Amino acid sequence: MRQAGRYLPEYRALREKLSFIELCRRPEVAVEVTLQPLARFDLDGAIIFADILLPLEGMGIGFHFDAHDGPVIERTVRSATDLRGVRAGDPAADVPFVFEALRLAARELAGRVPLIGFAGAPFTLASYVIEGGHSRTYAEVKRLMLTEPATFARLMQLLADTTIAYLLAQVEAGAQVLQLFDSWAGALAPADYERFAAPHSRRVLEALCGHGVPLIHFAGGAGGMLAQVRAAGGDVVGLDWRVDLDRARAELGEGVAVQGNLDPAALLGPPAEVERHAADVLRRAHGRPGHIFNLGHGVLPATSPETVARLVEFVHDWNGGD
Amino acid sequence: MRQAGRYLPEYRALREKLSFIELCRRPEVAVEVTLQPLARFDLDGAIIFADILLPLEGMGIGFHFDAHDGPVIERTVRSATDLRGVRAGDPAADVPFVFEALRLAARELAGRVPLIGFAGAPFTLASYVIEGGHSRTYAEVKRLMLTEPATFARLMQLLADTTIAYLLAQVEAGAQVLQLFDSWAGALAPADYERFAAPHSRRVLEALCGHGVPLIHFAGGAGGMLAQVRAAGGDVVGLDWRVDLDRARAELGEGVAVQGNLDPAALLGPPAEVERHAADVLRRAHGRPGHIFNLGHGVLPATSPETVARLVEFVHDWNGGD
Repeated sequence: MRQAGRYLPEYRALREKLSFIELCRRPEVAVEVTLQPLARFDLDGAIIFADILLPLEGMGIGFHFDAHDGPVIERTVRSATDLRGVRAGDPAADVPFVFEALRLAARELAGRVPLIGFAGAPFTLASYVIEGGHSRTYAEVKRLMLTEPATFARLMQLLADTTIAYLLAQVEAGAQVLQLFDSWAGALAPADYERFAAPHSRRVLEALCGHGVPLIHFAGGAGGMLAQVRAAGGDVVGLDWRVDLDRARAELGEGVAVQGNLDPAALLGPPAEVERHAADVLRRAHGRPGHIFNLGHGVLPATSPETVARLVEFVHDWNGGD
Repeated sequence: MRQAGRYLPEYRALREKLSFIELCRRPEVAVEVTLQPLARFDLDGAIIFADILLPLEGMGIGFHFDAHDGPVIERTVRSATDLRGVRAGDPAADVPFVFEALRLAARELAGRVPLIGFAGAPFTLASYVIEGGHSRTYAEVKRLMLTEPATFARLMQLLADTTIAYLLAQVEAGAQVLQLFDSWAGALAPADYERFAAPHSRRVLEALCGHGVPLIHFAGGAGGMLAQVRAAGGDVVGLDWRVDLDRARAELGEGVAVQGNLDPAALLGPPAEVERHAADVLRRAHGRPGHIFNLGHGVLPATSPETVARLVEFVHDWNGGD
């Protein structure tokens, strides 16, 4: 998950000079931010600093971030009329800075740890495009999905096409692992996920197959529909913390790895609690290969960097709980 | 779940004259609102119009609702110091209007349909008290829980004590079924739910046992930890829509009924979609007794009353899908 962020003083120092979107748009700064956590912590991977909304602009969907870094879509898509003027993006031309940042990061890392690229899944991107930002009910995205399924499907297709091009270009620029973030998949009933969201995620994940990069498929709040998430594809299913890892693996079956699933809020606790929570995840993962230890979401701003350092050490030192 | 609300023009008409809290505080108006959906729809139960935050005021925790009816806690509890002055409430004295509304509603209904009372579960109430309102991350409630477990437990105890008194008084005033709403339980990892939230819900549910009223235990977003929710008690487990009902029942095992689990947003779709979604729930529930058909959350404001009427008829006419 996201490793950089406001919990790091060196990130906050950059943010005093540059807006969030400027950090993304300046490749040399994006690389600096990407590498900040690696300079502090003995991490096993680097995730490029970017935002899932970046490819939208080239699709004709403008956005900005408000004072709290919350996304604001400038013209929401809630009808066939709204969809006019929305097109598949050409990420190589639209967001060249992402690929430049990946190239620079790959050069800096020189293979020390894998470089992870990512994109938003079509449903999660559509949620932003239709709701206009964060939502508590997802009423607008569901309304469009049910009342104008053709319009919804067309938007999802355009998002999937753009995402495929975006991720392929990331591989070309040096990404060695890809993650597809379906943060809001869990807002849907399992049957609706299967019908309206999964086919588009599947198309993205299938298009990335055979390019030599492992695919991590993260779906938030999906503890009640893991089988459906797995069926949509990916070599690894990314889990949040709302389901026990051993139960999730039983549900997912063989042939797929898992990533997760520590609650980022556990890092707000004292050392003993951080270890207790991390040990619980590790214990539930133990005895079966194919687990990438990770938080279930990005690091919370109130987290102390020392806690992250101790967590990384604890996980590396883990010996099976004996 | 909540039946009254902004989707009804007669509710909006009342709201033009009175604030949300005034509707709750005037028993004769609360009863009018309670009965509005029953005048329109052939419902099988009436749920008293109230808000889960009402008992907080008597605990020394002031609150109001903002312009969008969002709850605002006036003085959040985030430390032992903040907890001074917070006490167990005496609902009979603090919120007599709720019980008066129940008595009036029971008289009006005269046994036609059961009258349902409700309260917030300790964890969900604590979330509001600690966060100050809605939250996306629940970082503050989790921080207090992990860093000051004694303070957190004390708050939870006070909330549980108050809730027990509140629900017992509701039974005395005529409630024939009780529902405990743990809307934000799903924000927790299953192990944290079990450790920090479930014991307090269990205490509430056990205290209500043997009073001749069925207990519905609703936990939102809990598709990954249904076994833990069931273990905390209740005759009926209330499900949201993020898990398939048949899968949920398999997980819950025998000896417990279920309530739910239609996505309220399905009612924003055209008639064919509403029926499709309702039929899916009914089909998954079919062949085993102990299912109360319901939405997985309250009716959304954009819902058409005609859709609700058609849904009630569809469910009543359901014959097993043959």
